[in-house]
Amino acid sequence: MNIKLVLKLLGRILSMEAAVLVLPMAVALIYRESPMPFVWSILVILCVSLPLSFLPAQRHFHVREGFVSVGLLWLLTGIVGGLPFYFSGYFNSFIDCVFEASSGFTTTGATILTNIEALPYGILFWRAFTHWLGGMGVLVLVTAIVPSLGVRPHYLTQAETPGPVFSKLVPKQSQTSKILYQMYFALTLAEVVLLRICGLPLYDALIHSFSTAGTGGFSNRNLSVGAYGNPTAEIIIAIFALLFSLNFGLYFLLLQRRFKEALKSDEARFFLLLVAGSTALITINIMPIYENVWDSLRYAFFQVASIISTTGFATADFVLWPHFSQMILVILMFCGACAGSTGGGIKCSRVVMLLRSIRRELHRIAHPRSVEVVRLDGKPVEESTLHSVLVFIGFYILIILTAALVVSLDNVPFDISFSAALTCVSNVGPGLSTIGPSGNFSAFSPLSKVILSLCMIIGRLEIFPILVLFSRHTWRRN
Amino acid sequence: MNIKLVLKLLGRILSMEAAVLVLPMAVALIYRESPMPFVWSILVILCVSLPLSFLPAQRHFHVREGFVSVGLLWLLTGIVGGLPFYFSGYFNSFIDCVFEASSGFTTTGATILTNIEALPYGILFWRAFTHWLGGMGVLVLVTAIVPSLGVRPHYLTQAETPGPVFSKLVPKQSQTSKILYQMYFALTLAEVVLLRICGLPLYDALIHSFSTAGTGGFSNRNLSVGAYGNPTAEIIIAIFALLFSLNFGLYFLLLQRRFKEALKSDEARFFLLLVAGSTALITINIMPIYENVWDSLRYAFFQVASIISTTGFATADFVLWPHFSQMILVILMFCGACAGSTGGGIKCSRVVMLLRSIRRELHRIAHPRSVEVVRLDGKPVEESTLHSVLVFIGFYILIILTAALVVSLDNVPFDISFSAALTCVSNVGPGLSTIGPSGNFSAFSPLSKVILSLCMIIGRLEIFPILVLFSRHTWRRN
Repeated sequence: MNIKLVLKLLGRILSMEAAVLVLPMAVALIYRESPMPFVWSILVILCVSLPLSFLPAQRHFHVREGFVSVGLLWLLTGIVGGLPFYFSGYFNSFIDCVFEASSGFTTTGATILTNIEALPYGILFWRAFTHWLGGMGVLVLVTAIVPSLGVRPHYLTQAETPGPVFSKLVPKQSQTSKILYQMYFALTLAEVVLLRICGLPLYDALIHSFSTAGTGGFSNRNLSVGAYGNPTAEIIIAIFALLFSLNFGLYFLLLQRRFKEALKSDEARFFLLLVAGSTALITINIMPIYENVWDSLRYAFFQVASIISTTGFATADFVLWPHFSQMILVILMFCGACAGSTGGGIKCSRVVMLLRSIRRELHRIAHPRSVEVVRLDGKPVEESTLHSVLVFIGFYILIILTAALVVSLDNVPFDISFSAALTCVSNVGPGLSTIGPSGNFSAFSPLSKVILSLCMIIGRLEIFPILVLFSRHTWRRN
Repeated sequence: MNIKLVLKLLGRILSMEAAVLVLPMAVALIYRESPMPFVWSILVILCVSLPLSFLPAQRHFHVREGFVSVGLLWLLTGIVGGLPFYFSGYFNSFIDCVFEASSGFTTTGATILTNIEALPYGILFWRAFTHWLGGMGVLVLVTAIVPSLGVRPHYLTQAETPGPVFSKLVPKQSQTSKILYQMYFALTLAEVVLLRICGLPLYDALIHSFSTAGTGGFSNRNLSVGAYGNPTAEIIIAIFALLFSLNFGLYFLLLQRRFKEALKSDEARFFLLLVAGSTALITINIMPIYENVWDSLRYAFFQVASIISTTGFATADFVLWPHFSQMILVILMFCGACAGSTGGGIKCSRVVMLLRSIRRELHRIAHPRSVEVVRLDGKPVEESTLHSVLVFIGFYILIILTAALVVSLDNVPFDISFSAALTCVSNVGPGLSTIGPSGNFSAFSPLSKVILSLCMIIGRLEIFPILVLFSRHTWRRN
């Protein structure tokens, strides 16, 4: 383990995080608020990060170092990103700040705040901006820094890229990141403009676009998107949430006019089918509440888009809906968005592969001598990939149950402990009952908050990079 | 598909089920109750089964026919076994009777009865006796009947035998069944004698021994085992529940004095560790309620043994315990007993294989070029077995979520719908909240009762034999 190089890398990235804090500080100054929470945070971060970034280090860097860097980086980002919250004085404890920042960077959107609107503009800007930064991972930061260290960045993105089937778009990894980043930026800008046009203030349009882009869910309003009572804005946000949860590789194919390839995507079709089916079922189920097809459809579509994309915005308190609708949302929380997007969850491609493995197993019973491969997008999936996917799904459930067990030490009922663990691992945000859209996570014990923060990071990094940190094999000398 | 042979086979086995009904009828007569529910049931069954059992049929019988026979048999057994309940007049609807009988034969122990003690002795005897019959599957019936049809019984037991690693004890399958059956009978008898000695009436001793042997959970008392306030009886029942959830192959090894092999069992060690760990945690957690280490330990041990063995007896209402203890019990419901036992759940051996696959995946990240096999009991597990195990676990979760979705149409909260599906698929019995030890399943809609009955059968047959029935591949001509 080349720990010096890992630390040097961490130092450089944290220094960049300090630099980024200038942006919310500017927002604070514009709104004539105190810039001090940001000034103090920048000073504290630089005191640690600058010495690290000038460490002398050998240049060998392997998969192991990549996983460890990414894992440590995300753990530290939650702590470092919480500093402005801490210095603002609006949070009850440092653990609350770390929870909120981890929830931000992992694009979860679970909050411990009880009255969001009481906070200053600068802090709320930073809160939503962490979603935007986290959205595409520190991928871009990393591809900008790592080449200067002379290491092969592929190892880093192996741990970072969400999903199992992110096909390389262009031969060079750094170029891929640049293209992805441009698309991300363009889509965010498009959303800001559209939200502005349909009447949201610029500040609110920015906040909600950052949150949608990262599929996070932090809003600057207590009632989330529901506060505006603006159906057009709701539909724009829901559609953008879906756009940000499709595999970004598809957009690249579309840009290159490779429409046929793009249409072949089994994952996108499954995802859209799930959105359509869930919306239809929930619309029918909530019709008696809203007494109107159009309103029911509007609320159902928004909530389905918000949950399956793992954003977590709300226009209605779904905890008050019939339990059938809530159960559909819980199932969507498991499933999550597409691989290669900013969304969380198990990911649709993995669910599709599980379903096809099951079909094959059933087929094998009827025809024991048949040899069948599982296909995705028409191409055979390697058995080793399938194996990793299945292990991942088993592990996912295991982590949710373990986290729920720790949370249940707070003596909260099963629906709360289980949905808290699920919503955090899947990076959604709201859960059931008291942690629903109009609730929050403030009542949990410090232990639960720490465990749930860890769950968010584990979920965001698709489990393995974080758990590699806890494996003794990782730290053993070669 | 040789449907005629399948029907002939079903006819013969159902005729045997009619014959078995003579036993509870005798109990009814002993207690001077009306034998008519049993007389009518026997007549109805024979009218259908006798013509079937004399169908002329070709003798070819393959895996497919085996799976279909077993699947149809279990579906029919629930219906046929419910006839005495129906004719007794103590049940609200025929669906309730089917639910109760399915719960019996699958050794689940979930009930729709609100006042068990109001029922006649004969009916309650039949109710517990279905557990005993279901316990070792219709395995024995089948190995006694099938040879007379000249078919290879191995195909049938492939679908029936619980768990992935039931190693053949003796070369001939029919002999294996005989040995297993003898052990089953001997253990049941031992429990009856011990319960009788420590003061239970003979009738109650029989009922509870049948239920323990099948790891079912039906009692003839409203308060379940708690009704006796007899700590010795509780401990005997708990220990026998654990004995019936160990792989029966172990007893055979012990009988043959192959102690070393028996001690090598990773599954048994994992199972016992889980029992010890869970008991310790729950004991500490419930101490404030019982204000006494010994009582806490007693209640904790009984409940852990009862749930992990998927029996479902109760000496205390665990729904009133702290949520941490309940969460442990929920996790045990997922895990379940050992393969090759009468218990349900995912099975400890599968959980061990999942855990070892995860460990291998983590190890691979640190050492990408290492080639490692997953081992069980010191022997390497084939990749194809591992694959089936992982598909099984994914499928298990999927079925629970799907069933919970259907149950949530009754507008019951998440903890109830989810735990109902879980407890039925895992063949445990009680769930959380209103379906806990002092609750019951009577309030569910007919649709939920049908789906939950199906879940019990799916869980009992380890999913695939039932789902093969719904695959069009199965019914396609060769």
